[in-house]
Amino acid sequence: MTKPDDPNRVLIFDTTLRDGEQSPGISLNSQEKLEIAQQLARLGVDVIEAGFPITSPGDFEAVQAIARADFAPALPPVVAALARTHVADIDAAFNAVKDAARPRIHTFISTSDIHIVHQLQTTREDVKGQARAAVAHAKQYLEDVEFSPMDATRAELEFTAEVCQIAIDEGATTINIPDTVGYTMPNEFAELLRGLYALVPGLREVVLSVHCHDDLGLAVANSFAGLQAGARQVECAVNGIGERAGNAALEEIIMLLHTRQADVGLFTGAVTREIARTSRMVSRLTGYPIAPNKAVVGRNAFAHESGIHQDGVLKERTTYEIMDATTVGLDANSIVLGKHSGRHALQQALAELGFELSGQGLVTAFRRFKEIADKKKQVTAMDLEALVTDELRQELAGYALEWFDVEASTRRPPHATVGLSSPAGEELVGSFTGDGPVDAIFHAINAATGVDARLREFRVDAVTGGQDALGETSVVLEVGGVTGSGQGVSTDILEAGARAYVRALSSAIRRQGIQAEADAAGVAAPEAVPTP
Amino acid sequence: MTKPDDPNRVLIFDTTLRDGEQSPGISLNSQEKLEIAQQLARLGVDVIEAGFPITSPGDFEAVQAIARADFAPALPPVVAALARTHVADIDAAFNAVKDAARPRIHTFISTSDIHIVHQLQTTREDVKGQARAAVAHAKQYLEDVEFSPMDATRAELEFTAEVCQIAIDEGATTINIPDTVGYTMPNEFAELLRGLYALVPGLREVVLSVHCHDDLGLAVANSFAGLQAGARQVECAVNGIGERAGNAALEEIIMLLHTRQADVGLFTGAVTREIARTSRMVSRLTGYPIAPNKAVVGRNAFAHESGIHQDGVLKERTTYEIMDATTVGLDANSIVLGKHSGRHALQQALAELGFELSGQGLVTAFRRFKEIADKKKQVTAMDLEALVTDELRQELAGYALEWFDVEASTRRPPHATVGLSSPAGEELVGSFTGDGPVDAIFHAINAATGVDARLREFRVDAVTGGQDALGETSVVLEVGGVTGSGQGVSTDILEAGARAYVRALSSAIRRQGIQAEADAAGVAAPEAVPTP
Repeated sequence: MTKPDDPNRVLIFDTTLRDGEQSPGISLNSQEKLEIAQQLARLGVDVIEAGFPITSPGDFEAVQAIARADFAPALPPVVAALARTHVADIDAAFNAVKDAARPRIHTFISTSDIHIVHQLQTTREDVKGQARAAVAHAKQYLEDVEFSPMDATRAELEFTAEVCQIAIDEGATTINIPDTVGYTMPNEFAELLRGLYALVPGLREVVLSVHCHDDLGLAVANSFAGLQAGARQVECAVNGIGERAGNAALEEIIMLLHTRQADVGLFTGAVTREIARTSRMVSRLTGYPIAPNKAVVGRNAFAHESGIHQDGVLKERTTYEIMDATTVGLDANSIVLGKHSGRHALQQALAELGFELSGQGLVTAFRRFKEIADKKKQVTAMDLEALVTDELRQELAGYALEWFDVEASTRRPPHATVGLSSPAGEELVGSFTGDGPVDAIFHAINAATGVDARLREFRVDAVTGGQDALGETSVVLEVGGVTGSGQGVSTDILEAGARAYVRALSSAIRRQGIQAEADAAGVAAPEAVPTP
Repeated sequence: MTKPDDPNRVLIFDTTLRDGEQSPGISLNSQEKLEIAQQLARLGVDVIEAGFPITSPGDFEAVQAIARADFAPALPPVVAALARTHVADIDAAFNAVKDAARPRIHTFISTSDIHIVHQLQTTREDVKGQARAAVAHAKQYLEDVEFSPMDATRAELEFTAEVCQIAIDEGATTINIPDTVGYTMPNEFAELLRGLYALVPGLREVVLSVHCHDDLGLAVANSFAGLQAGARQVECAVNGIGERAGNAALEEIIMLLHTRQADVGLFTGAVTREIARTSRMVSRLTGYPIAPNKAVVGRNAFAHESGIHQDGVLKERTTYEIMDATTVGLDANSIVLGKHSGRHALQQALAELGFELSGQGLVTAFRRFKEIADKKKQVTAMDLEALVTDELRQELAGYALEWFDVEASTRRPPHATVGLSSPAGEELVGSFTGDGPVDAIFHAINAATGVDARLREFRVDAVTGGQDALGETSVVLEVGGVTGSGQGVSTDILEAGARAYVRALSSAIRRQGIQAEADAAGVAAPEAVPTP
């Protein structure tokens, strides 16, 4: 990727599908990842880091599917894949991204002594050799190569500079400085970058990037300080997800630069109106909730969305608002369908939301829509989003919920009976008397499948307000030490919970297979590989 | 309050109960506020902003209860009350805090032209006069007076300086600079403070404070830049709650200063081990969830808490962690009681958690404990916290849930019957066939009470992992334009949901009364008063 012509243009590098997806309890399938990638392209991000292909066949396939996708924008996003400095990592990364219009390999190795000694258990000389060989090997495959000196904020400046110079000498086109453990502070980080500019002459010829973690609540501020010090790529994730406290929140970076552009002078290529929808999609598919007070995308972020009647106070909108809710797309909720709406109206409404459905996909969506419309007077854009993303969740070869009966009362223990279909298509029935109706259903599912799954987390959110709102349920469970997560949507939270549980159980069983393969092959499990 | 002797000592001013409590959907009763204040004292905050007494009798009473409380620390926290520059506001603030060991009045008026013109509809001269009169009036009552030039980050520096000088001349002991709309950036904010130091000679004799909002994700970074520029009080809220995107997160400020103390040199008086418990209590009582990737207090904030088995990777803890989970009190979850545990064991366990219960309070807690212990094999510290805070929620004179029956199935619409007791003690029964079991119960409660409440939000979280986890439910509803919120805890989420709904309904009805009183008195409703 060449540097943008305008020196004030900031590149948005989204790592939701790589660093974000490494968060505990998140397990997206290929179809879900592809849907998020399409939405990121609509949002106008410059680079999508699609995954870490060496870590599992599933990750490889998802990166490949994204590399092969047709993206709507005229200039499709760069599709990047992560790789350690090992030859096998770089080969896997290249094979996964090679079909993209604009492929990138992102390779990394730590330059801090604490990582070199304790984690890599090697020497600085070896690190230099590995960095050189990795960039050279990647350059044999393609032009666009990014290099990250991992844990740079705790490393000796001179050594990091030396390694960056080596990467640039071998042809790296982007140098990314990660604050891997979320330790730095704005002024300190800016000083580090200025130090690198002074020590690495070639740094001005490539794109300098920043990748900050939020352990001390400074990810956005550190990234911003990095941009002010000369960086022109910022690595971030939707809703700030990522390892531990996560990455810099993409929506905050974009809206900070947008809102203060007149003073700061930097700008991105982002379509800000797609922010709210992107945030909802990622929250829904990952099962990670957004706090009401989350900047930009929280329910209360905009005063006039909060339900407080301040008409008498807000004589002038800008008195208490520096951003307009329409700028981030929060007004795009005007679509309303009813039980008499036809298939064409549904198709049009979905297209407005960015979902192009036809054929069997549309038939299924229309069936779900009719079920819901029979129960709800009005089906809104938010409901449609929830339904369509719910359809994406269907496991290819897992268990499926067929029916259930529950009796609950304060006067006797609740009893549940469930009917499932197995991956092979047999009907399975189980029942249980539990401590609560949800407990009873979940145990009944265990009884039906014969799998001893243990619940780790359970959460329900209403999609929209109103007594007849859709309930969106999130389950994380564990089967023999392997976790699985699932979500479900219904006007009935017991049904939504049961669907989520069955999906989480199917996902855990699938991941057990992946883990077993990894163990057999003697490679580390995906989640145990440290990354920038 | 005098300035601390050590010039590097930073004062923590907590506004959870004032700015935080103004968030939509939060309505804490006096007992809940008092419990949070006691926990803030254990956490070692220096100042508790307890409320805005003029805005409602309920707020006045809560501030008064906190002012009169016995706090465990040898040096009890300052108890502050907010007041506009009006005489009535300052009188109410003084009357509410006057019994505190260390009372403070915090008065404010905007210095930005956009606020002066559009919101105050007055002139700069009038603002100067109001600031002068307000501080002088407050000083007649007490020594410790804080003044805030609201919206200072969008005001002309010279005018803000002039108003601050007036406040200092009249005896203000703390000058607080608010970024009311969350607009500023770290370097810009530091420059503003340096400008004030240059223009206001008396500023070095008082405590300079900062109050930052998180609209652009920079609240912590801006506060930190303010401290580096010389401020020594930081206004913040637990979990970063507050108007719109909220205030700087207290836990991030404390842990940032703690983790980087060797480099920055600033320190607080906070007892970091109380952070996790404080965060859980505030989340539970406000019904505001914490994102898993929230810095310091999110479920994933600490790598080794995340459930990922990285034993092979974490050869040295500091390789990937800059903070230890024990530092913020995340290990304090070792208490486990069972169904055979007696009243004394419960009392001891509660005391370890900071709850001193005896008499009727202990009897009630023991009854609830036994109910839960019959259903769960193990009752953990987290469960006990949830139960005890649930008891705090009992409305004084509201409806109460007595019993319910629900039948739910995928094969026919769910049906619910509920029994309630009215505030007057009569038994009320209602039933309904709904779209889901929760919908059916909520409508049945409407039928029983004859109140047409409309659900706005519904959320369920599991308190701990495990199939038999306690479910914690949060409901926001609306009755005739007035919102009410309620939470409920049970192993049965339908029961927890019904309790939360009944409490929210009682709260909305109580608030309708307050609103009607305010309307009759011709004063603005509490939520419509703009604050820093």
